[in-house]
Amino acid sequence: MLHQDSYKQHISAQFNAELESVKNHLLEMGGLVEQQIGKAVESLLNRDSGLAEEVIAGDEQVNELEINIDEECSRILARRQPAASDLRLVLAISKVTTDLERIGDEASKIARQAVKATEEGSANTSSFVEIRHIGNHVSDMLRRALDAFARLDVDMAVQTVIADREVDSEYASAMRSLVTFMMEDPRTIGPVLGQMWSLRSLERVGDHASNIAEHVIYLVRGLDVRHVEPDDLVAQVEEHQ
Amino acid sequence: MLHQDSYKQHISAQFNAELESVKNHLLEMGGLVEQQIGKAVESLLNRDSGLAEEVIAGDEQVNELEINIDEECSRILARRQPAASDLRLVLAISKVTTDLERIGDEASKIARQAVKATEEGSANTSSFVEIRHIGNHVSDMLRRALDAFARLDVDMAVQTVIADREVDSEYASAMRSLVTFMMEDPRTIGPVLGQMWSLRSLERVGDHASNIAEHVIYLVRGLDVRHVEPDDLVAQVEEHQ
Repeated sequence: MLHQDSYKQHISAQFNAELESVKNHLLEMGGLVEQQIGKAVESLLNRDSGLAEEVIAGDEQVNELEINIDEECSRILARRQPAASDLRLVLAISKVTTDLERIGDEASKIARQAVKATEEGSANTSSFVEIRHIGNHVSDMLRRALDAFARLDVDMAVQTVIADREVDSEYASAMRSLVTFMMEDPRTIGPVLGQMWSLRSLERVGDHASNIAEHVIYLVRGLDVRHVEPDDLVAQVEEHQ
Repeated sequence: MLHQDSYKQHISAQFNAELESVKNHLLEMGGLVEQQIGKAVESLLNRDSGLAEEVIAGDEQVNELEINIDEECSRILARRQPAASDLRLVLAISKVTTDLERIGDEASKIARQAVKATEEGSANTSSFVEIRHIGNHVSDMLRRALDAFARLDVDMAVQTVIADREVDSEYASAMRSLVTFMMEDPRTIGPVLGQMWSLRSLERVGDHASNIAEHVIYLVRGLDVRHVEPDDLVAQVEEHQ
């Protein structure tokens, strides 16, 4: 009996170590993706195509991490057959890794715009402030979503989802001002479009960060809030204490 | 012994029925999303804001299906603890449902552009042909990705992934011609931007259809081709017969 108990404990310790490990790999991937976004924005603002090329090359590592994490999740599900909260954790990790990979894609897209803008020698005065501001905002959202995941912090996750609405409104206002800018000086159409695509990418990063935060809420509360309006979110989460 | 065998058979028949059921729900969701894209494109081309509103309202059903399918997947994993190919099927379904939901989002975005264009009474001559053509192309990709999933047809899946490259090049060429159009007549900047966003949405639909096809390849061959270049795809898939 004792022998069996210690065997079970051993298995359970191994299992916990595996869960810890895949969670750490996800957070590591998150850290890398955060860097990718930060560098992509810098490369665009400073017309630094060397830095942009680094981001483009770095996307391969992001992709590898996604594949590895998905394999780890499959292995855990096949061998350990987790239940309840452990199962939810594995499923959430498998969804979050997709969002992180897509954020990585957006970083590459921004970096490609940076390369193009550098080659064309176009000025970036028309949206410098907006790209800087929205870039900081979504980087902050991403960091908080990942922190919320690491600490299973529902409040922080809720705040992240709500912050996405601000990003959406900042994005809409930046787009409007860029349209005006183009209309006033049609020669700027080409470069300003490039800035619009980059802003769009940043807005998508905000969406993905918000998705990650929603997975944290699901993980901790077992509550699927993916299509809940921000106004109803706080109330629903409080009901599911 | 006999009693136990028949009990096992009973369980296994139930399990198969559950797998069949979640797979059917996914295909049903796929059918709905296909319709949403088709209607969204029609509403944009025909300036039909009634149809566009239908698409926007229909997105709620898409979202509900996503949540239900994810719940079914969690239930199966928790209760049945599937292994090998059954596990791969459940994991693939859980990933594909995310892609379908995002395609649904793109349909809504196109429909919102249709409403806006109808309100503004703007002409759509500048990209009518391109939107029609790329719309048909990505709808076709989506249909084939879902057929490939239903029949576990790897060849069809590979063809779908390869088709995405054509869509990308059609998209790039449509965008270039729209930029020229804007430059020649800056008064069209507003409406042409709307058409660009819609084309971008369609291009994203192609990406998601391609993702779905990649999951089919993973499902049948156990081969993760998400970041394999189209040129290497056929060779890699053939190696993994």
